Parts: sequence; C-alpha cells; structure tokens
Amino acid sequence: MPKPPLKVAILGGSGYTGAELLRLLLGHPRVKVTAVTSERSAGADVSALFLHLRNTGLKFELLDLNVLTKKADVFFLCLPHKTSQETAAFLHAAGKKVIDLSADYRIKDPGVYRQWYNTPHLFPSLLKKAVYGLPEIYRDKIKKASITANPGCYPTSAVLGLAPVIGKNFVDPDSIIIDSKSGTSGAGRSPVQPFMFCEVNESVKAYAVSSHRHTPEIEQELSSISGKSIRIIFTPHLMPMDRGILSTIYVRLRKNISLPKVQGLYRDFYRDEPFVRVLENGVYPATKAVRGSNFCDLSVFLNNRGAGGQTLIIVSAIDNLLKGASGAAVQNMNIMYGFDETAGLLTSPPFP
Amino acid sequence: MPKPPLKVAILGGSGYTGAELLRLLLGHPRVKVTAVTSERSAGADVSALFLHLRNTGLKFELLDLNVLTKKADVFFLCLPHKTSQETAAFLHAAGKKVIDLSADYRIKDPGVYRQWYNTPHLFPSLLKKAVYGLPEIYRDKIKKASITANPGCYPTSAVLGLAPVIGKNFVDPDSIIIDSKSGTSGAGRSPVQPFMFCEVNESVKAYAVSSHRHTPEIEQELSSISGKSIRIIFTPHLMPMDRGILSTIYVRLRKNISLPKVQGLYRDFYRDEPFVRVLENGVYPATKAVRGSNFCDLSVFLNNRGAGGQTLIIVSAIDNLLKGASGAAVQNMNIMYGFDETAGLLTSPPFP
Amino acid sequence: MPKPPLKVAILGGSGYTGAELLRLLLGHPRVKVTAVTSERSAGADVSALFLHLRNTGLKFELLDLNVLTKKADVFFLCLPHKTSQETAAFLHAAGKKVIDLSADYRIKDPGVYRQWYNTPHLFPSLLKKAVYGLPEIYRDKIKKASITANPGCYPTSAVLGLAPVIGKNFVDPDSIIIDSKSGTSGAGRSPVQPFMFCEVNESVKAYAVSSHRHTPEIEQELSSISGKSIRIIFTPHLMPMDRGILSTIYVRLRKNISLPKVQGLYRDFYRDEPFVRVLENGVYPATKAVRGSNFCDLSVFLNNRGAGGQTLIIVSAIDNLLKGASGAAVQNMNIMYGFDETAGLLTSPPFP
Amino acid sequence: MPKPPLKVAILGGSGYTGAELLRLLLGHPRVKVTAVTSERSAGADVSALFLHLRNTGLKFELLDLNVLTKKADVFFLCLPHKTSQETAAFLHAAGKKVIDLSADYRIKDPGVYRQWYNTPHLFPSLLKKAVYGLPEIYRDKIKKASITANPGCYPTSAVLGLAPVIGKNFVDPDSIIIDSKSGTSGAGRSPVQPFMFCEVNESVKAYAVSSHRHTPEIEQELSSISGKSIRIIFTPHLMPMDRGILSTIYVRLRKNISLPKVQGLYRDFYRDEPFVRVLENGVYPATKAVRGSNFCDLSVFLNNRGAGGQTLIIVSAIDNLLKGASGAAVQNMNIMYGFDETAGLLTSPPFP
Repeated sequence: MPKPPLKVAILGGSGYTGAELLRLLLGHPRVKVTAVTSERSAGADVSALFLHLRNTGLKFELLDLNVLTKKADVFFLCLPHKTSQETAAFLHAAGKKVIDLSADYRIKDPGVYRQWYNTPHLFPSLLKKAVYGLPEIYRDKIKKASITANPGCYPTSAVLGLAPVIGKNFVDPDSIIIDSKSGTSGAGRSPVQPFMFCEVNESVKAYAVSSHRHTPEIEQELSSISGKSIRIIFTPHLMPMDRGILSTIYVRLRKNISLPKVQGLYRDFYRDEPFVRVLENGVYPATKAVRGSNFCDLSVFLNNRGAGGQTLIIVSAIDNLLKGASGAAVQNMNIMYGFDETAGLLTSPPFP
Repeated sequence: MPKPPLKVAILGGSGYTGAELLRLLLGHPRVKVTAVTSERSAGADVSALFLHLRNTGLKFELLDLNVLTKKADVFFLCLPHKTSQETAAFLHAAGKKVIDLSADYRIKDPGVYRQWYNTPHLFPSLLKKAVYGLPEIYRDKIKKASITANPGCYPTSAVLGLAPVIGKNFVDPDSIIIDSKSGTSGAGRSPVQPFMFCEVNESVKAYAVSSHRHTPEIEQELSSISGKSIRIIFTPHLMPMDRGILSTIYVRLRKNISLPKVQGLYRDFYRDEPFVRVLENGVYPATKAVRGSNFCDLSVFLNNRGAGGQTLIIVSAIDNLLKGASGAAVQNMNIMYGFDETAGLLTSPPFP
Repeated sequence: MPKPPLKVAILGGSGYTGAELLRLLLGHPRVKVTAVTSERSAGADVSALFLHLRNTGLKFELLDLNVLTKKADVFFLCLPHKTSQETAAFLHAAGKKVIDLSADYRIKDPGVYRQWYNTPHLFPSLLKKAVYGLPEIYRDKIKKASITANPGCYPTSAVLGLAPVIGKNFVDPDSIIIDSKSGTSGAGRSPVQPFMFCEVNESVKAYAVSSHRHTPEIEQELSSISGKSIRIIFTPHLMPMDRGILSTIYVRLRKNISLPKVQGLYRDFYRDEPFVRVLENGVYPATKAVRGSNFCDLSVFLNNRGAGGQTLIIVSAIDNLLKGASGAAVQNMNIMYGFDETAGLLTSPPFP
Repeated sequence: MPKPPLKVAILGGSGYTGAELLRLLLGHPRVKVTAVTSERSAGADVSALFLHLRNTGLKFELLDLNVLTKKADVFFLCLPHKTSQETAAFLHAAGKKVIDLSADYRIKDPGVYRQWYNTPHLFPSLLKKAVYGLPEIYRDKIKKASITANPGCYPTSAVLGLAPVIGKNFVDPDSIIIDSKSGTSGAGRSPVQPFMFCEVNESVKAYAVSSHRHTPEIEQELSSISGKSIRIIFTPHLMPMDRGILSTIYVRLRKNISLPKVQGLYRDFYRDEPFVRVLENGVYPATKAVRGSNFCDLSVFLNNRGAGGQTLIIVSAIDNLLKGASGAAVQNMNIMYGFDETAGLLTSPPFP
C-alpha cells in the first residue's frame, strides 16, 4: 500500500538553500533524496559542509546531467542564473520535473529578464510554460507544472502582503513603497567581505536602492494580480541576523476605508491557506515568530495622519530560507505530486 | 487500530522550556496536549505569549491540581523548585506520571538538596523512587518510572561528555574541570536586567564560579557512573546567543593512551544512541550544528603538552532547550510509554 | 590660565543615556561631573551599575534638588517626562542651565504635548523659552538657551535627513514616509520582557505604527523648517543590535531634479557641520560606521520607477545614544558655554 | 613650545588592527599618520575600506620601503609573519623604530619559531634585540627598544592573568589550563567561509585545541616570569561577537591560601598600572565592560571542591583589538617615545 518514494535530486546543493532543502527533504515522508551536487565539494560527504546533517549516506557529486537524469524524478535547481536556464531545459527535454530556485524562469518577459540579468533567455517557449510557484496565487497551475519557477524571497514577502488588496479600487497602484529588512543568509554562503561576521554584526544598512533584481519580479506579479501595470519603489536592507524578511509596505488609499474591513479582506483571502497567518488586530509580525517555519505572518494598519489621505501599512514576515526559498520549493513539490501540501513542512517555528 | 492519543499537560508553560514542550508535543504523532498552565497569563490564548504558536486552540489555565488531574495522563512540570516537589507528589498520589523539569527530584541525597536549594525535601521516599532521566544511562529504569527527574542542561552536556571514560582506570577522577558556555535562554523568560539584550549582546562573562546549583548534580551522576566519589570544578559562562551549551571538559590521564583508542570508547558507548553523535577525528562540535535539535555532538582530543602528562579534552554541544530540557523530556516520555524513542524529535537542526 | 572646570550634574543617570553622558563628560576637557543621581541605586558606586566605569570616585545620590542646586552649574536631565518638567522649572528658577533629554520641553504646543504624553504641561512660558537642541538648525539660539530640549533619537535622524530639502518647492510635503530601524538601547535599561535578549535577538519587528510619540516632534520640526504644516507617516522598527538608527525616508518630488543637484544641496547645507557627513554618490550609510560616535551619515538616492514620478530616498545613520541623545547633549553644552563644539566628542567610531 | 608631531606609518593597514591603529593614531595628540599601506587597495582613500573613517586625507599606498622609510619615524607592522621579519629588519637597518604586530619577533627561540610558524627566522640577532611589548612586565626595556614585538591577543589575556602568581611557590606550574573565548575580529578581515556572519552567529565552538600558535608564546612568557619551564593547556573558542577575549584560567594550588591574600597579590602587582583593573571581590569581568578600551579587567576566585585541593580560577577580559593588539601598540609607542603612557588611549569603554 505505501507507494515507493519519489526520487528527488538537488543540483547546486552546497549553499544555505541547499542545506534547507536537504533538511526538509530528508525528513519528508514521501520522498527519497538520491543525489545532491556541488562542483567544488564533489566527493565529500554531506556532513563535511553541513556539520548539522550527519549520517545521511549522501555525498556531493558533480553536475553530470546524463548521469543525474537517471537518478531522480524531480530536480531542485539551486544553480546560478543562466546555468539554471540550460539545466532546466535539458531536464525538461528528458521528461523530468523541475523546481527552479534561481530567477531564470520567473520573469515572463525575456526583454525584462535580459535587462536585469544581463544575459538573453535562450528558452522563451519554456519560459512561457513555466509556472510562477506562489501557491497562494497559482495553485491550480502548479498542479500541472513541469517547470515551477520558485519565487524570490523578497517577492514572496511583498506579493503575499499586497495580493488581497492590490486589485481593489480603493488602492492607489502608483504609490507602492516596499521597505524590506532581510537576514544575511539570503546573500548565500560564498565568502565575501561584506557578509563577514564583523561587517554585518551590530549594523543595519540599505543596499541596491531602486536597483535590486527582485524589483521587476514584484512588479510582474502585482501587475498580473491587479490587471494593471504597476511600478514599485523597493528598498532592501541588510540586518544582523541569520534569517527572516520583514517587509513594511506602504500604499496610499484612494478613498477611506475602515481597518476592520481591510482586515476582513485579508482573512477572507487567506482563509484556507495552510501557511499564511493573518494576525489579530494590533499584533505585530516578528521574523522570530516564523523562523525555521514555512509560515508568512501578516498584519495591516491604517495611517490617517498623512496630508494626502489614508495610507495602508502592511507588515509581512517570512523566513527567507523557508517560505522565501526551500520551504516554498517543497510546498510546490507537494502540490505538483498531489501530496498533502503541508507534508514535511508542518513544524512550528522553534522559539526563541 | 490507531490508539487514542496520550493526554499530556504542561504545568508552568509560559517560559522558554514550556514553549519548546508545546512545540514538540503539538507536533508529536502520539499525544494530545490537553492543558497548559500559567498563573500570570491564565485565560490568555497560547499565541498571546507565544507569537509563533498560533491556532493551537489552547488557553493558559490556572494551576488547579484537582481539575488538572482529570485532564491528562502525564504531566510535564516546568515549575519553580519546591512547587515542583509538592505538585509531583500530589500527581503521583493520584496515579499520574510525572516528568519534572525542575531540580526537585534530581538530587538523590536530601541533605545535598537542602544545602544547594535552601529548602528541605519533603518527599524523600518519592525521591528514592524517582529516576534520573538521562536515557543514555538509565533507559531501563526510565521505562518503568512514574516520576522522571529531567536532567539539568549543564549536567546533560557534562555527563554525556564524561560517561564513556569516567569509570576507566586511566582517568584521574580528581582532576575534572568543566568549562561551559551557554546561550541565554537557559536563564528563563522573566525580565531581569542582566538578561536584557543590551547587557548580553557583544559580551561574554563567567558567573556562579564554583557555586552553580548544577555542580552537585554533575558530581552525583559522575560518582554514580564511576562508582567513585567525584568532586568537580565547574564554571558556567553566559554567551550572546539564544541557545546552545558547549562544554569543554578537561581530565588528566593517569597513564598514556592513544586518541583512536579513546575515540573508540566513545563510539562504542554511543553506538546505538539515536541522539548522541560522536564526530570524526578533528571535527569540532558547534552549538549551531545542534540548534533546534535533540542531538548531543561530541568530540575528543588529547593534549600532550602539560608537564603533568596527558590531558583528555572533551567537547560536547547540545541545544539547552532540547536535549538540555524539553527535548529530553519528550524523549523520556517516549521511553516511559513505549513509543518510538525518536517520535516527535527526529528533525535535523535548521542551519544557519 | 586654565579656567576652572564647569560643574555638571546628571539627574537620573542609571540608564544607558546616563552611562554615555558619564563616559563623555568624564573625558571632557572642560567639565567636572559633581553629581549623578539614581533613586534606586542611591549610595552605590557608579561602577556597581556600570562595570565599564571604574575609579570615577562618583556615587549615585538621591534626587534632592535643594542639595543638588549647589553642586553644579549645568544639569543634564535623564528623567521620566513630567518629572523632568518640574525639575527643569525648579533648576531654572534657581538660575541653573538645563539640558533636558526627556521630551518635556520639545513639543512647543502644550495641547499637542498633552495629547501625546497624557499629562498637561505646567510651565508653558518656560516651554516657550526652551530651545530645541538641534545645533544644525538652531545653533544661534542654543548659544543663549537656558533650557535646551535635547531632541529625540528618531527625530534627529529624520530631521537631519530632510532639512536640506524640506522647504524646497520641488518636494511634495504631503508624501513623507519615514521608515526607521533602531537598536535596542533606545528602549532603556529597565527590565521588561520584550527587550530580553532572547526576544530581540534574531528578530526584526515594527512597533507603534503611526502612534510613536516622536511623530509630533518630527512634524513640528519639519513644519518649522519648511514653513508649511507637515504630517508624516512614521514607522519605527526594532533591530537585534545595541545601538544605531537607520532611517530610510521617502519623499515624492513635484518636478524632476537630477541626483547631483540634490546631492549638492546636502553638501552645501552641511558644509561646515562637524558631525554630519554627506557620503559620496552611491555609498550607503551603515549604523556600524557611526557606532560610538556623534556623527550622522547621510546619503541620497533618486527613484525613477514609480508611476507617480520621481521619489527622493534619503538614508541617515546615527548612534541613538550619541548623536541621538548623550552626544547631542554634550554638543549642546559645548555651544551653550562657548566651548569648542567638538570638545569631548571627536573620537572616530571604533570598527568593527 | 609644542613639539612637532612624531611621524608614524602603518604597514598593512587594511584589516581590523589597521583600522583601530588608524583610529587611535588619528586621535593621538602627539603623532601624525603619514602613510598607510595596502597592496590590494593601493590608491584608494582610507574611507573606501573604512566607512567610519572619513576626511582623513589619507590614501592607501603600496609597500615600497625605500619610499616609506623617508616618510615616518616609527612603523607599525600589521603584515603577515615572514614579511614582517624582513620588513622590520630593513627598517631597523635604516634607523627606524618598529612596533611589530605580527608574531615574528615574539618567540625568542628561533627553533620554536620555526616549529610553529613553518619558516626559519632569518634575523636571530635582531630577535635577541627585540623586546616583548607587554608594558606591565617589560616597561623599562620597552623604553629603549628599537623593535617592539607586540604581544598576541590570547597571550596578553593569559599572561596578565597569571603574572602576579605564576612564580609563587603555592602554585603548581604544571597544572595550568587556559580556556579562552574570543570575538571574531581576531580572525582578520579576509573573507573565508568559517567567519561569515551565518556561520559564526548563534554558535560557539572550540578550535585549534592544543595546537594554536599562541601556545608557545604564552609558555615563553610564563616561563620567563616564573623562572621555571612551563607548559600549558590552551583551548581557544570562537564567540558570536565582534570583540573581546575572556580567558578563564585554572591553576592548582600546592598549599591552601585565602582568597583575600590572592586578591592582595593582584592589587599590589597592578597597583600603578593605568590599564589593568582588578575587580572587587565577587565581581565578574565581562568583555563588554572593556569593549573599545585598552583596559584589562581581572578577577580571581578560589575553588575548594576539587578532590585534589584548592584551584585558583582567574578570569581576565580584554578587547582583542585594543589591549590585545592596536591599543597595546600605541601604549608601547607612548613608552618608547616618553609620551604619557595613556596618551590617545584614555577613553572609557562605551556601553552598551
């Protein structure tokens, strides 16, 4: 009666998203990890890079697609953009399913992709086929997807925060400011000076003001949901902590509305979602309350001070490595294979 | 075929160990949390104190033993010492099983207990019955225990580090120094100035040098395992982090021995233990590698420099809230009820 | 030839701003600290509360104004609001100068004060006399002030960020959003659960959205500088670090302007300021680069994406305990007494 | 009347010790920094690497000794070992004074140096001439030194902790265990994975057990002070903080002695020292209390539990970048040039 486990492989698994994918998939009741690759650490036991993961029996191997294709049914891609493009295309041609954690299949317009990622997209027809993997918006499409483009961490926090109201007529779509605060793990595990402990600790800074690559991704999704062409102002900040994104989102309202009414919209929108928690009136999301879990916590506030009328302030909190990356990827796999959507993901966050 | 879940209650559940017990028990496949108490927060939803635990359907209630006795089969006590003494006695008389996370049933000698805790032990016969809940040493006794005294966090890290060698004739039992480094959650959740963020952050300090209450507990267990009367030097330190205890343990050797031989002793001793991981030669335990998990990571080193001969250096790492408190408590429950010993506990640590 | 030192007293000196005032004034070439008060710690040596300040020869004493009046020429008030009101009035009547670090003499309109601080202002005529102690704006008035109202930490970061452009006609004064990120020391040293290490560490959260008491203070100053009635949107956030405020400020522009032109306005405005540093084009302020110093680092950016036209993004960084509190207080004293404005303040920040 | 400033150069100034040397020397009343070198950043303004140091007028330059020799009177060397050896020799031959922050002139025995640093010492006669720059022990020699070997950070914390008692007959010199906890800045600024934020944060680990290069340096100094050949056990640990070393030192006593008597020895030994503070009975040193200052805080405790008799426990705290590196270097310069020993160093630590 128990079905044989789904065979999964992680390509480019030596970074922090790879670590979390491994952790989640090793504990998942329906899958078996059959391969994990790392060009630099091929041959090494997983524990050599991940001291916390011991006795897995897994060694890193080289990215040899001919070999790997035979080993698994579904492939998680944690590869650099461009490499991901080609790898996804190869695996797709071989009849495999792909969940791509890079940005390569997220931006639907190849021109926009080229502009922000400085490289052409060589598989525009595949791009059209790929589904943007935000289950709260595209669950039905993800069910049938063969390539799922796993969303970026900032876009997840921003789009989940805005989705319930972005298309509404009381919202001014030209006024959106997204001020995001992120932990350091989003920057990856490669050693560079700005992410050394002594540089990050006891410091907060903005970076990539108005030029972060997640900007067009957020704009694409907000435009798609609202049916309007939306441009945003997006400012990411680096925080002295491992994990977590808190996005504080400001939207002007065109006409006044009551807070309970807005809160009602959020509760309705996310009523059946297993991973989105709309907090009680006046309760502030904190990244620590979602740390280590796949939850997105949301709260909304109204500001009546501004001379320009009411402003809606939405605060969203996610763990950038879970709901913002590897957790969402597992959620997408669960949907693509008809597993319980929460399988392998239903741990509460550990606190503190 | 599926049996009805075991009904469990947590008494004194508003602190950090309560939070972890709740998290672990809510995710445990064989139990149902039927009550959790807090004198100060009675009536409040669990989420009011624990922002990370939502939709549990649980409210804190007052500690009314007549009411509570009917609600559960097994009781986790996170109460202050002395209160725990009496509560455990009451519940035991009512035929309930108790897992006591306080120190009240750990110290077997009532005189020693009185000396260190400044209060007499009023139930010396129960004390005799209670089992010290360190599964790696007392698994068989725990199976039949009605009161399990869950070990202290420092003692767990120290005793697991020393157990494989403490009785051996090549070890000098009069030379043990335990230098422990602990995260801040061990100090509890009550607001006191020394544990404010700005006091702890960016600082390391020793405290309670030679006077910490875990000293007699460590000595009792080392004496019991070795069959010798052992006194130790124990220095705890406070670290700027939430969780984790790293204990660096120094023991002089009476005669020379090779490192592989010592390592072999450790591997043999813990061969079948699900939660103790003896690391490869030269690999250093890190608290981050066990953070959020029930593992204890161990590594041993030999120092040949000292003029007094060889010294064995043992480094152990645990999460003080898991293997050092709530995780161990769940492990003990699993043993007491014949569940799979790893039920509800087999998550790998999230990293980073 | 060397003049006798100015005698200074610190009232309410047992918190973090008191600690920094003591440190700065003990190292100041022109002053002598003659008294420091603390109700709870009266009689204790300063080192009992401040382990870092040893051999000062100072003991905390009770707040007895009749005694204290004779001891010093200038008084730094780190008292709760309301107490500060009355204490300043008493000292003023006794012919003493006052630098008030509370909010009591900042808000010029007694009605606004009453609304936000829930208590009437009993000395409205003194309020009129008091000077808002932001040297970059009010230096000439501070020179002659007898009561200087030392600015709040958030207002300092916000007002210094906006002052060079707020009155300009290309700026839309109804569009100001101030998203501030603060270290924990701003919350003071009294033990309360939300500021315990394990609550703050590894977490980011917003608080007091649209309701923080610094809101009317910022509005007052922006209105005063611009000559327009300005209302703002202000969202403070709590960061897992000791010190530092980073404010990210968004202002819509009414007509397009070039970045070099805006940068020129900032450089001109702050050309002769010893403590404001306008960073090179593209360089991001970081709180760590001002930690432990009295500097305010500023950088400006233009966003051209928004559908509503250009938005100016200003980022400012200060140390909340220095330029945001005690450093500014010493700077104000230097101005009031004709000392070199940088006396006792010209240390570069230690890094890291 | 004011003398022309002493001209100082920093060779290899782009790391954390370089940053602190620059900060201290730029604020020093008697010196002028005339050059600072960095091979990788030659040509860049100092602020490009050190955001906190602005408007210094200094640019990094290449290490060209013929050019540099003409520029300064005294040279601070923050170069890798071996390079430092040769550079010091060249500058010495040119009649310049050298303060070497590398290990090259610390180890007096060329054989020991070769064994631990894997390279021969090419200037053994200079090595003999060089003075170990620990002012509390060698002040008179430093006054006349032309090459001062600035001590390592761990050795400073250990030797200052042991110096008052190491030669005493009540101490067992064969029993010394030094368990040190260090912040991350000691590891330097070069980007390597183990010192990335996400690797260090929320973690504690031991490293280089019994094999750290500071071991022979500590042994040399303890042997020299005591007149006995001393071997130690030294275990360094990495802490999640920027700065600070706390060393917990265990020494067995040969005969019993009272705590007040030992405390008296410490107070006497350091009575006139401007930078060593012996704390009151029962007060625990904390690295935060010396952070950003040149102080070393010391406290002693007696343990009477151990079966082997009394053990003395000494706890010492320093800022590894100040008293453990750049602060000590400036102190040494002050001594070498007859300046007030505390010039440029007498800031109290900022707290928190």
